[in-house]
This record gives sequence, C-alpha cells and structure tokens, in this order.
Amino acid sequence: MSSTKKKVFDAAISIFNSKGYNGSSVKEIAQKANVNIALISYYFSGKKGLLEQLLTNYFEQYIIVLEKSFEKKDSMSCKEVLCEIVKNLLRFESENHQLARLVHREITLDTMLVREIMSTYLTKEKYYLQTILERGIQKKEFRKLPVMNTIMQLKGMLTMPYLNLQYMVEVLHVNPVEPYFVTKYYKEISHWIEEGLSIQAERPTLSVINYSGLNSVNTLNASTLAGGS
Amino acid sequence: MSSTKKKVFDAAISIFNSKGYNGSSVKEIAQKANVNIALISYYFSGKKGLLEQLLTNYFEQYIIVLEKSFEKKDSMSCKEVLCEIVKNLLRFESENHQLARLVHREITLDTMLVREIMSTYLTKEKYYLQTILERGIQKKEFRKLPVMNTIMQLKGMLTMPYLNLQYMVEVLHVNPVEPYFVTKYYKEISHWIEEGLSIQAERPTLSVINYSGLNSVNTLNASTLAGGS
Repeated sequence: MSSTKKKVFDAAISIFNSKGYNGSSVKEIAQKANVNIALISYYFSGKKGLLEQLLTNYFEQYIIVLEKSFEKKDSMSCKEVLCEIVKNLLRFESENHQLARLVHREITLDTMLVREIMSTYLTKEKYYLQTILERGIQKKEFRKLPVMNTIMQLKGMLTMPYLNLQYMVEVLHVNPVEPYFVTKYYKEISHWIEEGLSIQAERPTLSVINYSGLNSVNTLNASTLAGGS
Repeated sequence: MSSTKKKVFDAAISIFNSKGYNGSSVKEIAQKANVNIALISYYFSGKKGLLEQLLTNYFEQYIIVLEKSFEKKDSMSCKEVLCEIVKNLLRFESENHQLARLVHREITLDTMLVREIMSTYLTKEKYYLQTILERGIQKKEFRKLPVMNTIMQLKGMLTMPYLNLQYMVEVLHVNPVEPYFVTKYYKEISHWIEEGLSIQAERPTLSVINYSGLNSVNTLNASTLAGGS
C-alpha cells in the first residue's frame, strides 16, 4: 500500500471513530491526511468507497487469520483449533484496534454494504466456527452445546474490548491494546473453552468415583464436583 | 410517558438504527412519528436532546435492574446474584432490543454524552459487578479470576445478540428477541459462571486423588481432569 493510501486510511479510521461515519466529511479526512480532497474522490470514490475499502480490507485479513487456524483441523484437536483461532483473532484485533473498532460498529447498521459483508465474510466465518464446534461435539471434545449461541458468546468476548476501547480504558482501566492484555484475556477465553464447552463439564468423573465406592474422596469432593447446580 | 412522546422515541430509535445518529434528520423522525417538527425541538431540544433522553432512559432502567439483583447479595450466594443479574439484564435487553441496539452502538463513540454516561451509569455498573465478583472470590465461590476481564467477557456476551441483531437473524438464524432465546442463552452464560468462574474449576480434586494414590481413578480421569491444558 502506498504511503498516501495508508495516510488516508488512517485519517478516515480516526475521524470515523470519533464522529461516526455519517458525521464525518471527506474534507476533514483530506485535511487530517494532508492530501488533496480530489485525490480521495479519485482513488477511493469518496467517503462511501473509503468505508467500503476499509471494511473489505479488514475482513479479507480477518478471514485469512481464521482460515489459517482452521486448516490445522486435521492435525490438531478441535479444542486446540478453537483456542488457536481465539489467540490469532485477539492478536489481529489488537494490532488493528482502531480499524476493528470502526468495523464492529459499522457492522451493526442496516446498510447494503453491511448486508454484502454478512453474505460473504460473516457467512464464511460462521462456516469455520460452526464446523469446528460441530466436529468437536461429534468427536466428544465438546459437550452438546448450542452451536449458534456459542458462536455468539465467542464473538461477544472477542469484539467487546476493541469495540469499547474507550470504556475499557476509562472505566475498567484496562488497555486492550497492550500485549499483556492479549495474553491474559486469551487465557480467560481458553479457560471458558476448556471448562465451559468441553465434555468434561458434564462430569463423567463423578459417576466413576461414585461407582468405585470411594467414599472418602466422594465426601470430600462431591459438592465441589457437583458445583451446587 | 405521553403517547406522542413514545411515538417520537420509537421513530427516533428506528431511524437512528438504520441510518446511524449522524445520518438521521429531525425531519425524518418527525415524519415517521407523524408529529410536527417544531414539537421535537420543543420537547426534546432537537436531535441531540432526543439521543440524550433515549440513552438516559435506557441507563436509568438498566441500573435499576442491576441494583435490584445486587440488593439480594446478603441473602443469596454471589454466584446466584450474578446469575440473577444476567437473567434480568437479558430480559431487559430483549424487551428493549431496538433501544439496546442503539445504545450499545452509540456508546462506542467518543462524545461528551458518552463520557458523561461512562462517569455515571457505567461506573455504577462496574461497581456492582466488581463488588459481586470480588466478594465471590473472597468467599471462595469464584476462583481468583481477573475481575476486569471477567466484566468484559460478561458484557460482551450480554450485548452481542442485541447490538448485532441483524447478524443474529440473517447469518446465525437466531432471533434474540424470542423468549425461548433468552432462556437458552441464559442457560449458556450461567453455565460459564458455574464452570468457568467457580472455584471448582481449579480442580482441587485432582491433587486429592493424586495424593490418595488412587491410581485406577487417576488413570481413568487424569487427562479429563487436567483437560489437556
């Protein structure tokens, strides 16, 4: 990407993020990028084209990140693939946090562009996640979880920090852009995958212990294992 | 609330949701609500005042819902209080889904109004969630989880379905507005609270079994218990 193009992209992301897409003008973007306004019309077909290119760029890369982890599905367990997806997407979001913030907001609007993105990129994304989850259920790595709701939970956890960057920093005093955050947050999500989605959560171990008649262990741990639910 | 006021609110929510706040005009809102444009200026001080009232209305109610569950903290376990919060907030979001969608999007922008909401409502929200989580850690109901990251995960899961209503319906083919969804999704989040946040997740049982030298049980379940992490 030429440096001018990058300057325009960066200026657009910054202005769209503070004023919203509809509240921004090409003039402001040109000023911030220090380029001629005609250049934006010429190279990007104006504000709409600029947004389109930003969203497309984001999702092209996003899908590649997803795909690369997905392709390991024959040599890794589904759980490992899902954790790898989480790790790589968090890193990707963190590295492109300003763009990610813009994308996650714009995607909630009801426009033609958003509908196109849904029918291409987000349908692909769903395919990858659904395949991994269903395969994991089949291979008894995951419990019989509701696949769509799990995708929703996962996407919620992944997007929250970057969509609400300002809230994170100013209210929770956490900076989701720091590598330290990515590591720590990844640990939490993988913990959810491990403890919340896996089949062990159905606790076959309890019945094994019960049937073995190991009463001392039983007394010690039954309530812990049952978790009071 | 007078029926006119409600008509204006509903029209504004609908138009803000399809065009974004900055892409909407008071004229469109007046037309959709079938009221005189001057009335909007008079009662709501224009578009900005309208957005302000919508956001404030939402958060006033939101905090009440949160508070009501929080107040039960002395008669219920922290886990139960957290589950109650989740259940009531999901119901609240579902009942006000159009407004929720607008609020969750607007809150990601960097404006004076958003900053005010952060320093009042979202700071209160943080206080309630943080108190319950920290209390739960102290009472050994929850493991030593990173409180802020957990708040983030929780908020991500709660807001995702309503912020991305269109994505839910059109890509995942799930309708987050149906009561059936709320019940099922609640079950998933409470499962996360039970299995992912609770102290049992630290699996003290493994070491107990190990030290007891119960090798047969050990062999059977060690990998399940350790979860391959």
